[in-house]
Amino acid sequence: MNAPGQKSIGKRASVAELAARVGGLVEGDGTVEIMGMASLEDAGDGQISFLADLKQISRLERTRASALIVPSALPSFPKPLIRTPNPYAAYAKVQTFFAEKEFEPLGVDPRAYVAPGAQIGRDVSIYPFVYIGKEARIGDRVVLFPGVYVGEEAQIGEGTILYPNVAVMDRCRIGKRGIVHGGTVIGSDGFGFAPDKDRYIKIPQVGIVEIEDDVEIGANCAIDRAAMGRTWIRKGVKTDNLVQIGHNVVVGENTVLVAQVGIAGSTEIGNWVALGGQVGVAGHIKIGDRVRVGGQAGVAQDVKPGEVVSGCPAFPHREWLRAQVVFPKLPEIKKNLSALEKRVEELEKILGSRENPKDER
Amino acid sequence: MNAPGQKSIGKRASVAELAARVGGLVEGDGTVEIMGMASLEDAGDGQISFLADLKQISRLERTRASALIVPSALPSFPKPLIRTPNPYAAYAKVQTFFAEKEFEPLGVDPRAYVAPGAQIGRDVSIYPFVYIGKEARIGDRVVLFPGVYVGEEAQIGEGTILYPNVAVMDRCRIGKRGIVHGGTVIGSDGFGFAPDKDRYIKIPQVGIVEIEDDVEIGANCAIDRAAMGRTWIRKGVKTDNLVQIGHNVVVGENTVLVAQVGIAGSTEIGNWVALGGQVGVAGHIKIGDRVRVGGQAGVAQDVKPGEVVSGCPAFPHREWLRAQVVFPKLPEIKKNLSALEKRVEELEKILGSRENPKDER
Amino acid sequence: MNAPGQKSIGKRASVAELAARVGGLVEGDGTVEIMGMASLEDAGDGQISFLADLKQISRLERTRASALIVPSALPSFPKPLIRTPNPYAAYAKVQTFFAEKEFEPLGVDPRAYVAPGAQIGRDVSIYPFVYIGKEARIGDRVVLFPGVYVGEEAQIGEGTILYPNVAVMDRCRIGKRGIVHGGTVIGSDGFGFAPDKDRYIKIPQVGIVEIEDDVEIGANCAIDRAAMGRTWIRKGVKTDNLVQIGHNVVVGENTVLVAQVGIAGSTEIGNWVALGGQVGVAGHIKIGDRVRVGGQAGVAQDVKPGEVVSGCPAFPHREWLRAQVVFPKLPEIKKNLSALEKRVEELEKILGSRENPKDER
Repeated sequence: MNAPGQKSIGKRASVAELAARVGGLVEGDGTVEIMGMASLEDAGDGQISFLADLKQISRLERTRASALIVPSALPSFPKPLIRTPNPYAAYAKVQTFFAEKEFEPLGVDPRAYVAPGAQIGRDVSIYPFVYIGKEARIGDRVVLFPGVYVGEEAQIGEGTILYPNVAVMDRCRIGKRGIVHGGTVIGSDGFGFAPDKDRYIKIPQVGIVEIEDDVEIGANCAIDRAAMGRTWIRKGVKTDNLVQIGHNVVVGENTVLVAQVGIAGSTEIGNWVALGGQVGVAGHIKIGDRVRVGGQAGVAQDVKPGEVVSGCPAFPHREWLRAQVVFPKLPEIKKNLSALEKRVEELEKILGSRENPKDER
Repeated sequence: MNAPGQKSIGKRASVAELAARVGGLVEGDGTVEIMGMASLEDAGDGQISFLADLKQISRLERTRASALIVPSALPSFPKPLIRTPNPYAAYAKVQTFFAEKEFEPLGVDPRAYVAPGAQIGRDVSIYPFVYIGKEARIGDRVVLFPGVYVGEEAQIGEGTILYPNVAVMDRCRIGKRGIVHGGTVIGSDGFGFAPDKDRYIKIPQVGIVEIEDDVEIGANCAIDRAAMGRTWIRKGVKTDNLVQIGHNVVVGENTVLVAQVGIAGSTEIGNWVALGGQVGVAGHIKIGDRVRVGGQAGVAQDVKPGEVVSGCPAFPHREWLRAQVVFPKLPEIKKNLSALEKRVEELEKILGSRENPKDER
Repeated sequence: MNAPGQKSIGKRASVAELAARVGGLVEGDGTVEIMGMASLEDAGDGQISFLADLKQISRLERTRASALIVPSALPSFPKPLIRTPNPYAAYAKVQTFFAEKEFEPLGVDPRAYVAPGAQIGRDVSIYPFVYIGKEARIGDRVVLFPGVYVGEEAQIGEGTILYPNVAVMDRCRIGKRGIVHGGTVIGSDGFGFAPDKDRYIKIPQVGIVEIEDDVEIGANCAIDRAAMGRTWIRKGVKTDNLVQIGHNVVVGENTVLVAQVGIAGSTEIGNWVALGGQVGVAGHIKIGDRVRVGGQAGVAQDVKPGEVVSGCPAFPHREWLRAQVVFPKLPEIKKNLSALEKRVEELEKILGSRENPKDER
């Protein structure tokens, strides 16, 4: 987002150079010079595009891109090509090359507030109206956009970017190369209240949130601090926007949480899990590694590693696929069952009158 | 919200003047002077109220309002009346009249930060702690509340209001007469990651968000910028709070998104669509014009123009209404089916013993 | 959250003193000195822990805590004990004792903005970059974190804490001892638009939000102001994060709203209600006192006091429990029904050929 990308920032590379960057094979003229990237439909002269999936091969017909990143198995095509088994990852890498600007640290703006005892690393960009609390530690090359709040003793690792109005509450920690999008709150109090006669008593939430390296958190999320101990977001986790993570939750490495997911307190999510949009997960359960959960599902019990589940409450996705197509036919099923009951009754009368005369007493 | 409304700000108008303003017909004394508006239950002397629907006619009995906006078909009633075919729209217009204050621009507060090269229109109100980035363009009569962030090269159209702590990221554009409620983030990165061996690679999100004229966005929403190209909110769209709009989504003209709706990437929503609260829409699908989707529904496939759907996954609303009433009876259906199977088995035995003796071998 | 809690802040108390504080009975050595609290697994020398539920009694085996808060009915155990009928509430009280720091007001930071006519109480902490509008009233001992916005004529009661980037819009009121977590917006416009020919007209939202005493609101919530009158959050209400409350809603005393709940306009929720995570409630309905709603349920109609409901649309929870287990079996039910229909048809043929020869014409 720091990079304008679609307006040229002057970067150029030959098709062969880009192929080397992504580990792909050049087919056709590798000397063609490329100045940027766009979709197949929008790309024009001097731009490269990509086809992620052979199923969409018809999209190639009209493209005016000067070169293409394509799946290894694509039949020949009259443009300079970069063949690769993973065109989507290659697209990410080429786009990163074109979008990356040289990093120019702004330093600490005099309109920011830095409390006594806070440690600020080198080459940071701290915008106006940023607040950094006592004893906080800000790593090298960190970027804090306007309105960011970093609480007392909080830690922000090297190269991490906090977008506008992100709040990292006291003592919480974010690792290296992290990205947190606007408005997200890290370290709000967990939701804990003990009923006591005619009121609730608040349970002080004295734990923290710990976020490891290479984590990206979406906009307007809320990640609660632990009641005691830590809420723990492992390395490589990616969350979309408006995600809720309760106190003492553990989210395993490289797990992906799509928008509006909610995870209740003390639940453990494994590594490489994917939760679809609007999924809700109950508290105090375990979701195994590489589990996939369909959008809007409600997970109320442990899920074993590798399972794919859907529905509310969730059950195996394949069974859900078969059950949900029957759901609209429920009225018909009910009607047919009633009709059948009458027919059976009729048969029973006929037979009963002959076979079981005693029933007619 | 700028207008206090319920405390008088000194505006007055006769019933006849208000009727002219809404294109209604006066019945009774049109010279009665009105100083404000309130609900039928709360209105008192000098206030006008409204009845939107004849079904609620009993609410008129005890009202102490001095005049009433009513449906054209209301039988006679002993108060000064403004008759109109659309009392709800007339209410909106009269309330707007009483609530509107004269616009007094504050100018640019010295505690705001305006970067070099930013263009600021005339008669703006830019509060303390607003940040405006390089080359941003702020139209005439724009109001930016405290904590608003406007990124580099972003554009805010004439008369648009951004409430506290709204962030409009770099290069995004908002049209004229827009309203964005507090905490909303426009132009956060779309959620795109390419799996590559043992990690995810971030796909740079180099597109923008474009919001046309007369759009209102609720509080704490997130509208992601496009991967390439634009996420596009067409004119007249209204979204409620906590709405998520993914990258490259198009939301058609005058479409309404109720609170907590989530729309996944690259989906196209038509004009005059209404999505109920907490609806989830999958990515890469098309929702036709004037479609209506019931609350909490999950839309996984294209929906044709004019359809009304509900459920997860969504299907025609009328069928859903019939299916959902059967759902609670599932245990009974299952039980009855088992019982019936036994009865049929019994009948088969009786008949079989006579008709098909060979089956009993 | 103001208290570090897990790092000692120098507080100490004997087991007997803590028992007195929670109204519990000491068993064993009441003179043992305690310096903090931790979970059974993490507690060490000088720390107290707690067991909330006898079902988890096995967790006691390996604890190294120096003392324990336990249910009255626990069999004897070789540690200093505090026996109480409500160990969870006792935990809350003891944790509060250890976590509470002495309150040290910061005063009004010169980098905050206080408009003319605003009234500021005694012993407040108003951080940098806080905005307080004209005629706003800030009570004694209020804490306003950086980025907080308090609109014109808004009122914040004694001892209330607003965390970073909270916005309380004009004329809204918050009672005493309130807590509002980061990013929450109180008093955004209600979602009201009147269709008028080819567009929507905005209905001015001229009411307010009124929040009573002892209310805690989570992070990144949105509570809309009333169209007219007030949106009303009664005393003792607790909401989790990302909760949406529409205009003119009433939330009764001590009601608990779990994360991502959405309540549509004009609905009335009773006292001591609990809505599970991601629950949606339709507009213009009534939820009675002490109702409990299961996670992800959709409540479309009035619910009587004391009922427990689940599902979408919601119905009694016990029936839902029985229905949802049958749902995955729908394909089997459908298949079995079809098979049974064929068997009955077969029987009818056999009998019909003998009993109703006229049917075979």
